[in-house]
Amino acid sequence: MVEIERKFLVNSEDFKKAAYSKSRIQQGFLNTNPERTVRIRIRDEEAYITVKGKNNEAGLTRFEWEKQIDKNEAEELLKLCEPGMIDKTRFLVKCEAHTFEVDEFYGENEGLTVAEVELSSEAETFEKPNWLGNEVTGDARYYNSQLTKNPYKNW
Amino acid sequence: MVEIERKFLVNSEDFKKAAYSKSRIQQGFLNTNPERTVRIRIRDEEAYITVKGKNNEAGLTRFEWEKQIDKNEAEELLKLCEPGMIDKTRFLVKCEAHTFEVDEFYGENEGLTVAEVELSSEAETFEKPNWLGNEVTGDARYYNSQLTKNPYKNW
Repeated sequence: MVEIERKFLVNSEDFKKAAYSKSRIQQGFLNTNPERTVRIRIRDEEAYITVKGKNNEAGLTRFEWEKQIDKNEAEELLKLCEPGMIDKTRFLVKCEAHTFEVDEFYGENEGLTVAEVELSSEAETFEKPNWLGNEVTGDARYYNSQLTKNPYKNW
Repeated sequence: MVEIERKFLVNSEDFKKAAYSKSRIQQGFLNTNPERTVRIRIRDEEAYITVKGKNNEAGLTRFEWEKQIDKNEAEELLKLCEPGMIDKTRFLVKCEAHTFEVDEFYGENEGLTVAEVELSSEAETFEKPNWLGNEVTGDARYYNSQLTKNPYKNW
């Protein structure tokens, strides 16, 4: 239940040519406190509730718990969420042994694109594609929970 | 997904003689904001995640969504909750057509006992047993979410 993820900015649209999957994601937060975020997400036809803890001191690992829920119930729960819904398309891009999740944001976060890669240990290395920009792992501004409250357009 | 519940203080232990069920409940909150509380509850051997909205203006109806989760996962989630765990025994007491849930609190809320009855409409009437005290429906101090932050002992 602990995940190791590294997050990067994306500096070109080249990743789109390499993407093998694409899905629309709408999500809101029942709690945006970084100590214990609670997220409601609808991804195409599926819905989930997800709880995440804070990044550890090194900034790389984070407690995560997720459970699939009914899509209609998720729509009701989204109405209860804090103001500021996240709307984005998620592309999956394979690059050697790893898969990057690349999120292109819309609405208040238009112009922002970030890529995440999941690793099995903090020491694990991975191939960096040419469209990958600066690392922003552990920078709370890029948490989706924070993008609802302080969206990219306001930075 | 909207529940109508009325809540009362309990002014004697007479309800215990009439109880047909008894279970130990431990719970914590991932969010105590009354607009959208998120609760993790372990009840004997079962565990649940529950989201509740605020009471409506009349104070009687409240959005509620609940899903059963794995008990071991619930124990991990409890560690992530805000400080102040709720520990109580819940008694079920049948009284004519209705069932009262009576919660006897321990720890920081020792001395507090409250009873709730669920109704199918705001107009529905019900039999009041002799141990039922003043109504406190809609009084946020008695929300379990608030009892973690401002426990009964401090009132």
